[in-house]
Amino acid sequence: MELLMEEISRIIPSGQIFTSLADRYSYSYDASFGSYLPEMVIQVKNKEEISSLLKLANTFNIPVYPRGQGTSLSGGPLPVNGGIVLDMSQWNGDLNIYPDDLVAVVSPGVLTATINEEAEKFGLMYPPDPSSAHVSTIGGNLAENSGGPRGLKYGVTKDYVIGLEVVTPEGEIIKTGGKTIKNVTGYDLTKLIVGSEGTLGIITEATLKLVPKPPATKTMMAVFDDLVQSGKAISKILTSGILPAKMEIMDQFSIIAVENYQPLGLPIDAEAILLIELDGHPLAIEEEMRKIEEIFTEFESVRVKIAKDQDEAKSYWRARKLVSPAIVKIKPTKVSEDATVPRSKIPDMFQKLKEIREKYDVHLVVFGHAGDGNLHPNIICDKRDTEEMIRVEKAVEEIFKAAVELGGTLSGEHGIGTLKAPFMEMELGAAGLDMMKRIKQIWDPNNILNPGKIFPEEGQKLVLRE
Amino acid sequence: MELLMEEISRIIPSGQIFTSLADRYSYSYDASFGSYLPEMVIQVKNKEEISSLLKLANTFNIPVYPRGQGTSLSGGPLPVNGGIVLDMSQWNGDLNIYPDDLVAVVSPGVLTATINEEAEKFGLMYPPDPSSAHVSTIGGNLAENSGGPRGLKYGVTKDYVIGLEVVTPEGEIIKTGGKTIKNVTGYDLTKLIVGSEGTLGIITEATLKLVPKPPATKTMMAVFDDLVQSGKAISKILTSGILPAKMEIMDQFSIIAVENYQPLGLPIDAEAILLIELDGHPLAIEEEMRKIEEIFTEFESVRVKIAKDQDEAKSYWRARKLVSPAIVKIKPTKVSEDATVPRSKIPDMFQKLKEIREKYDVHLVVFGHAGDGNLHPNIICDKRDTEEMIRVEKAVEEIFKAAVELGGTLSGEHGIGTLKAPFMEMELGAAGLDMMKRIKQIWDPNNILNPGKIFPEEGQKLVLRE
Repeated sequence: MELLMEEISRIIPSGQIFTSLADRYSYSYDASFGSYLPEMVIQVKNKEEISSLLKLANTFNIPVYPRGQGTSLSGGPLPVNGGIVLDMSQWNGDLNIYPDDLVAVVSPGVLTATINEEAEKFGLMYPPDPSSAHVSTIGGNLAENSGGPRGLKYGVTKDYVIGLEVVTPEGEIIKTGGKTIKNVTGYDLTKLIVGSEGTLGIITEATLKLVPKPPATKTMMAVFDDLVQSGKAISKILTSGILPAKMEIMDQFSIIAVENYQPLGLPIDAEAILLIELDGHPLAIEEEMRKIEEIFTEFESVRVKIAKDQDEAKSYWRARKLVSPAIVKIKPTKVSEDATVPRSKIPDMFQKLKEIREKYDVHLVVFGHAGDGNLHPNIICDKRDTEEMIRVEKAVEEIFKAAVELGGTLSGEHGIGTLKAPFMEMELGAAGLDMMKRIKQIWDPNNILNPGKIFPEEGQKLVLRE
Repeated sequence: MELLMEEISRIIPSGQIFTSLADRYSYSYDASFGSYLPEMVIQVKNKEEISSLLKLANTFNIPVYPRGQGTSLSGGPLPVNGGIVLDMSQWNGDLNIYPDDLVAVVSPGVLTATINEEAEKFGLMYPPDPSSAHVSTIGGNLAENSGGPRGLKYGVTKDYVIGLEVVTPEGEIIKTGGKTIKNVTGYDLTKLIVGSEGTLGIITEATLKLVPKPPATKTMMAVFDDLVQSGKAISKILTSGILPAKMEIMDQFSIIAVENYQPLGLPIDAEAILLIELDGHPLAIEEEMRKIEEIFTEFESVRVKIAKDQDEAKSYWRARKLVSPAIVKIKPTKVSEDATVPRSKIPDMFQKLKEIREKYDVHLVVFGHAGDGNLHPNIICDKRDTEEMIRVEKAVEEIFKAAVELGGTLSGEHGIGTLKAPFMEMELGAAGLDMMKRIKQIWDPNNILNPGKIFPEEGQKLVLRE
């Protein structure tokens, strides 16, 4: 360790190296579960530093854990084997928009929301909008392939990445893709690395595709007494030729939680609220809105409201934004899942979740991106209550099984990290998982980069207790 | 070989095995260069046959070359090392649309245009539209990640693939992705395999994302006396908030070729014709059309025509479709490239192509997908004329260099295959190419599946002579 420190101090200025217990503790957790002390934290701001560090790490066989702002809900940046945490959040100075090419080029520490704000100055838009966009880095979003409400119409982070600069696990600097929209020169390493949760390389620069900002947006809200009817309305809208920018759902438990937390006048006796944002040409939106109103009536919505201006629209979305802070007021621990099903299976998934809630007597709240089948079942609990947490673990396991049985997936946008690793084989099969592992092994033969993520250890089980 | 034949006849019905010289010759070439006789051709129609065959091929160390309809422009299916050609084109019976999930599930031999035709019956659209869509298989499109004019607004094949069933090079059957739009469960093998040119696995089923069919489309054409002005008009349109579905260009040489081939009344003294298709809400299109007209006037277009109905629109697109058949009437050999540059570099690329045309005295025709920087420089020549072909080889090499120097790529949509392999390191660097090779080696340790593609052999050069 001393020899390693000596070598590190040759390549990294001392002001960027942190070894005190307090500093190390600050980097020991993220927004998921568990706490693991790294041996040191290094703040990096250029690719050469990262390249040299990774070469050293291979020589000394010490794990390296890249990290943005630590907002991961799946344990992505947790230093589960100790070693070095590489704090990328300070490398936030580069954000260039090239309007003629319709691209942005960014450094990994830039906050995601900033990219869209800059793009808007040129009449452009960076569509991916994870709820954490104002506090999470684009580097973290790239590692996890983050989604968000606009995923329905616009897709996720990966759909907007056309080029990367990456330091490989062995410290080589490579470029993938470029500034062109079309590129079929060899294997698509860009899309392999995006979403690989920092296990295949450290992204030092990304080229992101931008699109013209739609000229108008409009928000509407519908209240349903029957959850199943709301599910049917969603299906009908999506097959009627309309593709809303966002289509979000809040179940009764979310509505009650928000009203208790901050009274907004939401109908606490309703089984579901649907929130829709349309964007595009103003006249097209107007027509789509009428069509959606008819569909809502057909499926017995008890109330439909159309925001008359941006302020009113914001107030509707405020209810959705408050769900997360509201539910942690009920009990201190939130187990936030993102199991995703094919769109047509949304009503079935709601039924399954209801059964799981009753079977394990857990406080299960459901909200999320209804339009693309990416629900967020959240279980509210208290991690100090062992008996309760055992029930929660069983409920979570059954949520994953339900999603996979309905033809869905463990994770729509949060990533596998440490928490979902035990369930990988259930979805992928042994051979599918093996093909992924082979890539990790041949790219990172010493298993230096973010080890302990994605791939389950022998016999690994979900444990949410401390 | 005899022992292998004996083993094969145990797993494949004899009617699906072809060994006569005539049959083997039919599978020895594609739409690119060169001819290589396979030792046998096997038509397969299910994954179990393919799995067993690949296991045998590994035992006997014999190469396997998957093939759709053989329309590749880069040599994708050529059996360069002999061995077995796997004809997938007969496996064309499965095409199911799931309108509630907005997906289609298809077998590899289905013709691409058929998918869109079936989707339209449900008010949906499968956007990728390579020019060969009526004759090429979806399997081939997936292997090459095919593009097309609609790539400008809608992206390419890869953007629509959410799940695959694949037989690995060693004969294991795996599933990647699924039926959900969002999926971050482990590495994105789906997008790694799509575009890997049949070197990483044989796709036996694909789940494709569909989108609502736009309610209206409109076509317009503009004539320019000055190529550079047309390039500026393209940039202005794209940064004005309008994203056309298609934006195609034909240079003067293409215009003349088409007029000589089939007189359509095109202006043979014009330097460029731009063809645009807008789609979306009828009122939005109307407004966009007016804006584009203004831009055309600003950049000195000498004539703008708007198709009054679908028939007139078709006649405009006919000109673009005739370019390929027209130019091969001039000379028998067509070297079709797809070097792609960032959108803002389109005028520079035109300038470079002009210089290359003069420097090597080649018959260079330029047309293609102007809106996304994916031009198609085609050199018309006669492959029996060795002196000319040497000049052509040099010109092609310089086209690749120009594209890479302008921040672009060797191939936007045709693939690397055999033809562009020698130039891979120029674009990717040694380390980038090595990371790709590692994946091939660990997935296909015996180098059974489509060997001789993408990765250059030591000292390999472009040779277009027979």
